[in-house]
Amino acid sequence: MSQAAVVSSQPVTACVLLIGNEILSGRTQDVNLAYIARTLNERGIQVREARTIPDLEDVIVETVNAVRKQFDYVFTTGGIGPTHDDITAECIARAFGVPLVMHPDIEARIRGYAKQRGLAPEVIQTSLRMARVPQGADLIDTEIGAPGFRIDNVYVMAGIPAVMQSMISLLAPKLSGALPVRSRSIGAFLGESLVADPLRAIQDRHPQLDVGSYPFSESGRYGTTLVIRGTDEQQLDAVLGEIHAMLEGLGAELIQRD
Amino acid sequence: MSQAAVVSSQPVTACVLLIGNEILSGRTQDVNLAYIARTLNERGIQVREARTIPDLEDVIVETVNAVRKQFDYVFTTGGIGPTHDDITAECIARAFGVPLVMHPDIEARIRGYAKQRGLAPEVIQTSLRMARVPQGADLIDTEIGAPGFRIDNVYVMAGIPAVMQSMISLLAPKLSGALPVRSRSIGAFLGESLVADPLRAIQDRHPQLDVGSYPFSESGRYGTTLVIRGTDEQQLDAVLGEIHAMLEGLGAELIQRD
Repeated sequence: MSQAAVVSSQPVTACVLLIGNEILSGRTQDVNLAYIARTLNERGIQVREARTIPDLEDVIVETVNAVRKQFDYVFTTGGIGPTHDDITAECIARAFGVPLVMHPDIEARIRGYAKQRGLAPEVIQTSLRMARVPQGADLIDTEIGAPGFRIDNVYVMAGIPAVMQSMISLLAPKLSGALPVRSRSIGAFLGESLVADPLRAIQDRHPQLDVGSYPFSESGRYGTTLVIRGTDEQQLDAVLGEIHAMLEGLGAELIQRD
Repeated sequence: MSQAAVVSSQPVTACVLLIGNEILSGRTQDVNLAYIARTLNERGIQVREARTIPDLEDVIVETVNAVRKQFDYVFTTGGIGPTHDDITAECIARAFGVPLVMHPDIEARIRGYAKQRGLAPEVIQTSLRMARVPQGADLIDTEIGAPGFRIDNVYVMAGIPAVMQSMISLLAPKLSGALPVRSRSIGAFLGESLVADPLRAIQDRHPQLDVGSYPFSESGRYGTTLVIRGTDEQQLDAVLGEIHAMLEGLGAELIQRD
């Protein structure tokens, strides 16, 4: 964690695991994936898959073991609180085949917080569940809430968005990545079918870029947002010019996009 | 699709596949999973896993083939428009080892729409990409946009939320499910560590229910929302009473939750 971040010439990939019954039931709207994806992309790390899985030990263990071999990084959110349904730490330990141990720094923090608040001994005991990490894990720092932990390429973070955001923001600058993927976007009040053929031709001419097309509806009018993604800013600007010219040739009314 | 929906005594499970680079890049915030989960739950179908995957043929084919054997239903969103990055239909055909063919009803709808709008022949040709389905697939109806399709237990829907919502709302009443999972919730301005032990005892006494605990922060105060899920409404009310008494015993300030 303390070595200088390295910039790779190959794509660096990540998988995000959102752990929690409340997301799968539709009770909670996840907002963590988009935040993690944007933060990692700034470090040149591409989220290539995300899985939302329930608070079930076997599912968590099997999923972690499947994806940690497939991707450079795995980031999990959820299940690291002090209650009976917080089982992420023991599942990660089982996935790695190591015991669950108390992390001395996390323990010290929880005891400090408990002392400050004058918590009862049995409550402190319960809070200390949050200090249990798989043997060999490092602490993931946070400005609010209890810390997360890392073991090998698996980063275990809180599910509460504010806590997770603090963790990933402190963590990201230390991660090794590649060049960030940048994008250019432009919207047009045109159906997708009208732009499909010229857009395919532009994608075929620039196979190193990713050209996407997303229909939208605004104030009752249908349109299409065209997005180009790639690591070379000059190339992106040039291809945005081609798309702009193509849309003007079709007589489309254009709208700015971020 | 036309047979009467059956109510199973076993849990009926589903996996949701969100297909699209724009969700993985963090550019688009997914809202489809929560909507699908809530709608299916009303039919007694439990979403047990969701995966967000990129617009990459091999990944889509492998993922579909993995999950369609694991779950009773698979629902996909995204990638069924007319542009070059809309590859879901051909991927599903490849996953099932069948050719891609024109669906006559979808073709007729697209031609009707095109005639109404006076679209040029080459634009109609492009739009007809949306009529291609794996051989043997049924149409999934919608009140807006082009239809989706079903093959075996895989339901292929649009990514645009308004179109997907129309599809799943028309579709759900025809699906066979089990008893819907209901929930009761109550919030308390108490840290999770304070409720963890009594809550675990309640969960242990009622193993057939799912008792969850979700920390929150409102107007700068921390609290915990307790949620019980199960199919028996009377049992849920009784256990809600136990939780209510437990929280009052702790002197907690309570807040109503839906």
